[in-house]
Amino acid sequence: MCPHPNGGSTPVNKNDMVAIENGVNGTNAKPAIKKRGTTRDPNAHLSNEPKNPYAARASDLLSNISNFNIIESTLREGEQFANAFFDTKTKIAIAKALDAFGVEYIELTSPAASEQSRLDCEAICKLGLRAKILTHIRCHMDDARIAVETGVDGVDVVIGTSSFLREFSHGKDMTYITKTAIEVIEFVKSKGIEVRFSSEDSFRSDLVDLLSIYQTVDNIGVNRVGIADTVGCANPRQVYDLVRTLRSVVSCDIEIHLHNDTGMAIANAYTALEAGATHIDTSVLGIGERVGITPLGGLVACLYAANPEYVKSKYNLSMLREIENLVAEAVEVNIPFMNPITGYCAFTHKAGIHAKAILNNPSTYEILKPEDFGLTRYVSIGHRLTGWNAVKSRVEQLGLTLNDDEVKDVTAKIKELADVRTQSMDDVDTLLRVYHSGIQSGELACGQKEALDRLLRRHKAEAQGRAASPSVERGD
Amino acid sequence: MCPHPNGGSTPVNKNDMVAIENGVNGTNAKPAIKKRGTTRDPNAHLSNEPKNPYAARASDLLSNISNFNIIESTLREGEQFANAFFDTKTKIAIAKALDAFGVEYIELTSPAASEQSRLDCEAICKLGLRAKILTHIRCHMDDARIAVETGVDGVDVVIGTSSFLREFSHGKDMTYITKTAIEVIEFVKSKGIEVRFSSEDSFRSDLVDLLSIYQTVDNIGVNRVGIADTVGCANPRQVYDLVRTLRSVVSCDIEIHLHNDTGMAIANAYTALEAGATHIDTSVLGIGERVGITPLGGLVACLYAANPEYVKSKYNLSMLREIENLVAEAVEVNIPFMNPITGYCAFTHKAGIHAKAILNNPSTYEILKPEDFGLTRYVSIGHRLTGWNAVKSRVEQLGLTLNDDEVKDVTAKIKELADVRTQSMDDVDTLLRVYHSGIQSGELACGQKEALDRLLRRHKAEAQGRAASPSVERGD
Repeated sequence: MCPHPNGGSTPVNKNDMVAIENGVNGTNAKPAIKKRGTTRDPNAHLSNEPKNPYAARASDLLSNISNFNIIESTLREGEQFANAFFDTKTKIAIAKALDAFGVEYIELTSPAASEQSRLDCEAICKLGLRAKILTHIRCHMDDARIAVETGVDGVDVVIGTSSFLREFSHGKDMTYITKTAIEVIEFVKSKGIEVRFSSEDSFRSDLVDLLSIYQTVDNIGVNRVGIADTVGCANPRQVYDLVRTLRSVVSCDIEIHLHNDTGMAIANAYTALEAGATHIDTSVLGIGERVGITPLGGLVACLYAANPEYVKSKYNLSMLREIENLVAEAVEVNIPFMNPITGYCAFTHKAGIHAKAILNNPSTYEILKPEDFGLTRYVSIGHRLTGWNAVKSRVEQLGLTLNDDEVKDVTAKIKELADVRTQSMDDVDTLLRVYHSGIQSGELACGQKEALDRLLRRHKAEAQGRAASPSVERGD
Repeated sequence: MCPHPNGGSTPVNKNDMVAIENGVNGTNAKPAIKKRGTTRDPNAHLSNEPKNPYAARASDLLSNISNFNIIESTLREGEQFANAFFDTKTKIAIAKALDAFGVEYIELTSPAASEQSRLDCEAICKLGLRAKILTHIRCHMDDARIAVETGVDGVDVVIGTSSFLREFSHGKDMTYITKTAIEVIEFVKSKGIEVRFSSEDSFRSDLVDLLSIYQTVDNIGVNRVGIADTVGCANPRQVYDLVRTLRSVVSCDIEIHLHNDTGMAIANAYTALEAGATHIDTSVLGIGERVGITPLGGLVACLYAANPEYVKSKYNLSMLREIENLVAEAVEVNIPFMNPITGYCAFTHKAGIHAKAILNNPSTYEILKPEDFGLTRYVSIGHRLTGWNAVKSRVEQLGLTLNDDEVKDVTAKIKELADVRTQSMDDVDTLLRVYHSGIQSGELACGQKEALDRLLRRHKAEAQGRAASPSVERGD
């Protein structure tokens, strides 16, 4: 079932897998009798089409890696983040930004939560966004009656089905849950809007109970069923199995909501799409209960890596950083330094061997193109892990002329200085210029360490003299 | 192959799977003729043994979820993080902390990188730590000769094998790579220390090339082979497939090194263990090139969720936060707010239905026990998503007496106030005390909104009066 881990191109057209006309190549073409049997094009390996080893495979017949919807829940799950308090203005700004980014759905806090929640839900429904607006309610007629009056395009209904939640949360049995679910779903459907039914804590629920209730609600015409890893306990192969099993039981869409307690929410979402899920819940920066859910940026990163063209065609990727900044400011957190795509070092290359290859061809160490996200690449060279190829590139950028031996010589000096403290780009540039002018003037030759030290001391003294002199308009 | 996503206990003893003595139950025991055929114990479902639906399954014969080693690479991969500059003192502090935490291996920057790198490597080898000390070198005899003289317990050798790296980095073909690998491995082995051979960018390398070189080095007695997702492009099912394939080709240990560009490095590590990998590379907070690699804390979180007792027996979990703080300070970053385990809201529960269940039984919404990490749980109640069960719990904590209708009444007031701004715990406590004393004195009854507002205004005025009066020793 699993795709091959290495290389190999996927036929663009699935028909290529089943039947290939023979006799189209070479001079030995037989008379035009249509024979049975298939063979591969003997010249197929000469194709110049770019191979993408991460694309969905023809064997992944269920995969929705290249056909999915995002249900963006910053304004619902995100509001459950400890730091979150969104006033109306902020909610509207976030909803508009998400809509401009291109998410398919925006999910809002239940209008039953508080009076202002209800008013805000109505206000966002009136914005006329292209994204469908959903609200998220308990599986209860009281909540459903309030929800359908707000103007939403759909209602997401949830109830706990695990033994934990049945015992310690609502205390209801599966018969009661099923009966209530049918009542709520039929009521919402009667209003002509979308309805989703989700279990809660699905991965700790009884599988037979789960499949049974999903089949029931599928039969009465629910639009989507939802799986929720409410406690963040699932791993990718469990997600794959449960979604794939569910896919064979219901014909409606399948949504998945994944908490990130063990840091696997992005991979679990990816695997769910491979198994046939159609809708993924996200929030900006992953904000939500505890450490939150699948982050929008992380999901975009892994799906972009699988199918860049599809992801670029759906979403306005260069807005990602702006949306993350908007939400980070609203909930008073910093963008994590190791955030996919927007972490401040996401496109910084440091080790010598990395820097060398990146300068030759960025694809060697980058699966994401920074320019597609409105970002830029940076190669760091002023440290002891640097390499002479990276330094040579900087020499060329500065328009200096040094041969390879000279570049290696000055690289050794950078490493020596960086063993004491990291050198800034300014420090490195100064060193390169001093070295270069020494070579040019004949005061320095390759390997003359003491001469180089003398030139550097002289340069430093001159720079300090300039800085101290009032006649020179230059700070330190 | 995949484990069942829901429930079911795994036999502790694998023999339970293959042969069960019959005739041990009931009164119909037949004469002692040993029959063929097996059947399950009809009383097995009555067992009171706790079920762990996340534990490895008997079907996962290759899984190392409960038998793995951590190769902690903060002092090698972590040094490639853009912000990292570790002086000798810091390196030693980090190495000692990791050793006290209990990691099996500590990997250090190549002694060939710089003179100070070599001296630091020697210094750490002399500390007498229980963790094995490794250094990480290019597949080159020059580097190997320096490495074996430092006193390390093992050498990790790496070379790029993908077409990208062969073309744009070192420019060598597979024949050359194989020849050099053999020379370096035999040299390191001759010194009586461990040696690992790893490809680089393994997921974009030719599968036949990869398996061929791994088989060759396995045959000459390498201790470990390594797979590296150098660009962070792999997804869990690719990792599972490649590791499982490799497991059938070599008999030595299998190490995996996973970059986090698409946020899947934790899940990929977990899946690699399921497929038969034995050693996982980590760094503290995941620091490394770009957005780094599998973070130590995240790996611990997902493995703890799978097998808490095993993980608790191996590692000093309450040190995790201290180690993360040490490294975060050294590289001048903040602990990400959504970090597994140590993110500052990792154990904060907010939504009403969550808070209610957590107060009844923490397992309802927690897969990780905060006390196992020396941390504590917090239930947030002063917001508009709060619920009356959570408020009731706080009422009881404060030693106040209110009936359920009164608790629901005061909860409505909390929601009303929190619609304007989030209420601090102090705010909530004050409101509860004023409400309670109003009920006690008879000035307030359930549902009397105006009376409550009057009492709150009076309380505020009195509090301000006290604050303004110089005779009361109390600030604002």
